[in-house]
Amino acid sequence: MLSKSLAKYVQSLQQKKFRQEHGAFLVEGAKSVIELLESDYQTDLLLTTEPFHKENARLLDKQPARVEIVSTADLERVGTLATNDTCLAVARTKENRILVADPAEYALILDDIRDPGNLGTILRIADWYGIRKLICSPTTADVYNPKVISASKGSFTRVQWYYCDLAEFLKNQSGVPVYGAFLGGADVHTLSFAPGGYVVMGNESNGIGAAVEQWVTRKITIPRYGGAESLNVGIATAVICDNLRRSLA
Amino acid sequence: MLSKSLAKYVQSLQQKKFRQEHGAFLVEGAKSVIELLESDYQTDLLLTTEPFHKENARLLDKQPARVEIVSTADLERVGTLATNDTCLAVARTKENRILVADPAEYALILDDIRDPGNLGTILRIADWYGIRKLICSPTTADVYNPKVISASKGSFTRVQWYYCDLAEFLKNQSGVPVYGAFLGGADVHTLSFAPGGYVVMGNESNGIGAAVEQWVTRKITIPRYGGAESLNVGIATAVICDNLRRSLA
Repeated sequence: MLSKSLAKYVQSLQQKKFRQEHGAFLVEGAKSVIELLESDYQTDLLLTTEPFHKENARLLDKQPARVEIVSTADLERVGTLATNDTCLAVARTKENRILVADPAEYALILDDIRDPGNLGTILRIADWYGIRKLICSPTTADVYNPKVISASKGSFTRVQWYYCDLAEFLKNQSGVPVYGAFLGGADVHTLSFAPGGYVVMGNESNGIGAAVEQWVTRKITIPRYGGAESLNVGIATAVICDNLRRSLA
Repeated sequence: MLSKSLAKYVQSLQQKKFRQEHGAFLVEGAKSVIELLESDYQTDLLLTTEPFHKENARLLDKQPARVEIVSTADLERVGTLATNDTCLAVARTKENRILVADPAEYALILDDIRDPGNLGTILRIADWYGIRKLICSPTTADVYNPKVISASKGSFTRVQWYYCDLAEFLKNQSGVPVYGAFLGGADVHTLSFAPGGYVVMGNESNGIGAAVEQWVTRKITIPRYGGAESLNVGIATAVICDNLRRSLA
């Protein structure tokens, strides 16, 4: 049974200001919640339909969260998914911890990626390609936005992120290669990537801003064979990560 | 001025049944409409705001379409975009023409790609990588769906498509390589692709169906380096096309 006050609290977490105030965020749907419960995130609350709870009791009782049996209508009312007949969790956010790439690994730098769907897709891609750190400009969408969490398909549990002023951050990374996605840069099909460093991806419409561009040590480009003017930033991130892994193999 | 009957007609084209009945489809927003007018599609009707028409008269008067000056509110009411202060066109659909890959080129085969956003993204990717033919199962989203057209960012003007029963189609393509995206196939980083053939991409949840799988001559896989279980079908299409072009270079 879902009380009015609890429903209101859960619903409020759709908004960044309440996520920050309460240090909590929403995770919706079976796959994402199961990955959450298997991760090191702390789960405060689990709302689940009775059939789903019965089928997954062993999984759902993994963490000492408060569990409430609710209806599908409740889940859809307090959450953001158009359809959800399984579950929804409220978990604790983590603090904004400084992340730096090791010399032998890669981290992605996201300069003003505004669209939550793109950011969630980028988390999933980073996770696929074994890149575990994202450095995000303050103008990049909030990773704890339910749309980001949902689009990441559970990858938010395996990727870490750090929001900061990117130019300030890069100023202190001297000697580390900083690749940036631009038109007219080095062809990623023939480039030999360094063993570690940063790859910067820019805003959906405007690309990488001037303040960050000055710290890019190597401009890189995905070669084009046809008529499209550009690729979506999620697509471009995937193709660059794939070429990076090929180059390091 | 937008009459009631014209508004109703334009609005009706959001639905497949009316697009088929009228042989017409919607193209929304400046970039897409300008690409439409520069293509070999026939434009029947152009709705444009006065400021946009003034600034782009030379472009917008390219084809002998009926032009109506309308308000932003009109565009948003009859179209599908949340915001549109520029223009919307109604164009003639093309007939479902049989397409076959030449021995020296690639065509994509889409088996049950349901999501219009994914299909639009795939059009844009195909166009970027110079792949100009899509063969689609009847269950794949309708390319003339406004969401597909919009997500393709104008690439619908440079890519052709053909809807048919895929198993029937592939039965007649003997001797032509048919690559299919599966888990556990040949690594696309090391595979040498033939100079031409087909690449099959499968449904968002279920992958390539059994009826089509039997015609796949080579299963291929994008290598994974981290924890994500899968990649979105648009992302996977881009990475495969990129590897294909690298291999053929």
